[in-house]
Amino acid sequence: MIMASGLRHTATHAPSLKAKRLGVLTQDEAIVLMRTDCHVCRSEGLASRSRVLLSAGERDVIATLYQVDNDWLAEDEAGLSEAAWNRLQVADRDSILARHAPTVESLADVRRRIYGGRLDERAFRSIIGDIAGGRYADIHLATFIAACSAFPLDLGEMTHLTRAMAEAGDRLSWAAPLVIDKHCVGGLPGNRTTPIVVAIVASLGLIMPKTSSRAITSPSGTADTMETLAPVDLDLARMRRVVETEGACIAWGGAVRLSPADDVLIRIERALDIDTEGQLIASVLSKKIAAGSTHVVLDLPVGPTAKVRTKEAAKSLSEHLVAVAGAFGLSARCVLTDGSQPVGRGIGPALEAHDVLAVLQNVPGAPRDLRERAVLIAGAALELSGSAPRGGGEAMAAAALDDGRAWAKFQRICEAQGGMRTPPRASLTRAWTAQRSGSLSHINNRKISRLAKLAGAPDQKAAGVEMHVRVGEDIVPGQALLTIHAEAQGELDYALEYAASNADMFGIGV
Amino acid sequence: MIMASGLRHTATHAPSLKAKRLGVLTQDEAIVLMRTDCHVCRSEGLASRSRVLLSAGERDVIATLYQVDNDWLAEDEAGLSEAAWNRLQVADRDSILARHAPTVESLADVRRRIYGGRLDERAFRSIIGDIAGGRYADIHLATFIAACSAFPLDLGEMTHLTRAMAEAGDRLSWAAPLVIDKHCVGGLPGNRTTPIVVAIVASLGLIMPKTSSRAITSPSGTADTMETLAPVDLDLARMRRVVETEGACIAWGGAVRLSPADDVLIRIERALDIDTEGQLIASVLSKKIAAGSTHVVLDLPVGPTAKVRTKEAAKSLSEHLVAVAGAFGLSARCVLTDGSQPVGRGIGPALEAHDVLAVLQNVPGAPRDLRERAVLIAGAALELSGSAPRGGGEAMAAAALDDGRAWAKFQRICEAQGGMRTPPRASLTRAWTAQRSGSLSHINNRKISRLAKLAGAPDQKAAGVEMHVRVGEDIVPGQALLTIHAEAQGELDYALEYAASNADMFGIGV
Repeated sequence: MIMASGLRHTATHAPSLKAKRLGVLTQDEAIVLMRTDCHVCRSEGLASRSRVLLSAGERDVIATLYQVDNDWLAEDEAGLSEAAWNRLQVADRDSILARHAPTVESLADVRRRIYGGRLDERAFRSIIGDIAGGRYADIHLATFIAACSAFPLDLGEMTHLTRAMAEAGDRLSWAAPLVIDKHCVGGLPGNRTTPIVVAIVASLGLIMPKTSSRAITSPSGTADTMETLAPVDLDLARMRRVVETEGACIAWGGAVRLSPADDVLIRIERALDIDTEGQLIASVLSKKIAAGSTHVVLDLPVGPTAKVRTKEAAKSLSEHLVAVAGAFGLSARCVLTDGSQPVGRGIGPALEAHDVLAVLQNVPGAPRDLRERAVLIAGAALELSGSAPRGGGEAMAAAALDDGRAWAKFQRICEAQGGMRTPPRASLTRAWTAQRSGSLSHINNRKISRLAKLAGAPDQKAAGVEMHVRVGEDIVPGQALLTIHAEAQGELDYALEYAASNADMFGIGV
Repeated sequence: MIMASGLRHTATHAPSLKAKRLGVLTQDEAIVLMRTDCHVCRSEGLASRSRVLLSAGERDVIATLYQVDNDWLAEDEAGLSEAAWNRLQVADRDSILARHAPTVESLADVRRRIYGGRLDERAFRSIIGDIAGGRYADIHLATFIAACSAFPLDLGEMTHLTRAMAEAGDRLSWAAPLVIDKHCVGGLPGNRTTPIVVAIVASLGLIMPKTSSRAITSPSGTADTMETLAPVDLDLARMRRVVETEGACIAWGGAVRLSPADDVLIRIERALDIDTEGQLIASVLSKKIAAGSTHVVLDLPVGPTAKVRTKEAAKSLSEHLVAVAGAFGLSARCVLTDGSQPVGRGIGPALEAHDVLAVLQNVPGAPRDLRERAVLIAGAALELSGSAPRGGGEAMAAAALDDGRAWAKFQRICEAQGGMRTPPRASLTRAWTAQRSGSLSHINNRKISRLAKLAGAPDQKAAGVEMHVRVGEDIVPGQALLTIHAEAQGELDYALEYAASNADMFGIGV
């Protein structure tokens, strides 16, 4: 309507810079560094923390800008974090365009919820789409999480959020009417029941295409442990072939993007140490729905250093999990388990694999608690799917372990995934002993996990911690409480230093 | 209680690195870059986004870690953002120690509020102390803000928050029983009443030690405009001398740290575009209380592109402002004003100063709206302080302008601050004209501000926008709507390009 007096102005400076890879790891957030005095910052009116749309050819990414007043970065360069670099797929000195990022419309929905409004399905879909698309900065993610926590999600909202998260990524489907799955809510060190449960239920004819994660902050994820026993890096076609022949797989989920927004939200929830029911439910169920599961058993460890701390919290969580799952036709059953101490003996990829093998092979002295938990969960899966009568699942599961069917099935799954492997043993071990006598009153799960990580897990497959005691035992001075396994003297030293200054990881009463 | 078998381990690697200044501007957040493979990351078990305590001698700072997989940063270097560098006050290659940051205890209070608990005075004090101390990462700040928004603060909490914020910084006190202040809630471009109000009320014998801010995202702050008329960078001793001799000053607040947590929170609120009543009230009042004010007049512009959008919102905000102020013995009065368009003619430091001078000097053609707003606010201040009878304040204020007392006082204040200056004029100007006829239905405050900034304001003191029209006027084609003032051809071009693609900053109806 209104033009400059007789003149039309064209952009005299295209907002283009040369890409520079900085190798900066930021987890997900894309970051770009530009000189404060570069022509793009000036012409676009950009300031530090501005959200900037970077584009190179067909690709683009929204990044957070930090300005630089220092000539280690040239005036014509845009320094990219790995997240930005990988999304743009450029080479050093390639031209990239930088402009003010467009408004992220779904942030208005987040603000609406902050001001007391509930959100409908459309709103959750647009929020989750923007999160999965990398369009939220970390402070936006934190705000969304807090807004859904301080004013808790109702069942309808949990359902909308779950659906939006499931739909934001890949969807799997299986040529089977009944697809079983399991999930443990809240990491308990050594709770590596999955390979055993999969072997049991598949040996009894159920379909269980299990995708698992690698460790993010824990000493081992199921995929890390399984990788010491067989290849887990299967593409979707390979996964399908394994499931077609054996009825099950135990694969790393990295080949498929199930509920990608969940990974982004979990990172921020972890940093904030906020974990509310609504987000937990959407996180767990969206992945199961996207994975094409029809039945799921959920392991809820309850204990003072576990994620779920009381029976009451576990009961409310169970009810809501089952209700939201039901809205998607997903049959869910929750099993409350003891979350007071680590499970089995080994903590770390290979150490846990040895425990898994011992249970599957019925070795004398196999960790009883790990076997019992696997039987409990496999039994629940058998009952939930109608393969066993109510109350008869555990006996059926135990029988499949006892008579070697589960072990035979496990070996066939490993062969189908590329061949069975022998988990390694660490070259260095050092026992950690008690100084005084008394009854072992508690074990701090979090400190044991940290110790295993300092020893090198999960990067060093054989590294970790081997536990020798359980809560309730009487301890005598000089008794070995645990053994640290490491592949390098430096890591063994780090772990021993940590143990020396964290003696309270074991509580010994008189 | 429990020790390694016979051995004591001492730290074999001190967690020390060499400081490297990166010049990265992050606003407030301290950031440190370290190589993923450096000995500190390994021995401390640090990951990207870990919170790290950096220390150098007596000084320390909590920083967010980003890891680097690239050798532009050496293995023994810690690359510091400006916020981290300035807090540590190190030189390049100085040794700094880096460890896991201690737990920030007050985050437990933030989480408590997220889970539905209200916070008491102790909790707010510890949260605000940690924020002022730089111990919150941006996602923590965002969470605190959202938690106080989705579950709104009650009057008691607003009072606790206000007190905690006021107490977290410097406190001023004045040897006067009555100290008047003013504040405008929500930036309206050109609304530069402060110098005029100060001159009027000081000419009538009131004490008004005004501290003002520089622009953060606007084309000019009161301190920027005032600096074109007199020095504003006064230390506290100088401020006291000016106030002792003239009863008032108009100084930059930078010499004193009034409510430092407020600046931190405002940055995040702005990024999130969240601005809730509780936080607004604590922000405004904590600064007034810390400044030692006893009476304050609050200008609340109401309009579709202003901060307060409706009369109803303004009424609720007024009531709560007055109630919380009362809890501190601070008398507050709110004045609702028109926020539908810029005030006066000039937008930008010197252009606004020319408007201020025109009003103070009673120049024919001085912007009437600026004069009226200043008279309204000064009148309210005179009534609130008991210097004028209720309903008689505006006439008293207008008289002080008309007979030159305010102008005389203003000149004396400028002299006391270091000498009066003549605001500069820009070397380049370009008119922006209408293309068609019609009635001017609205002006977008935000776009006009952006235009003034692209023209160079506030860094270029003479740059900005001069408005020629007001809402309701009939416009004819070719008529100048505004003139852009700039000091460099490049900036003039940027501003003209923006105007060309944002013709909707003016709405012209038929």
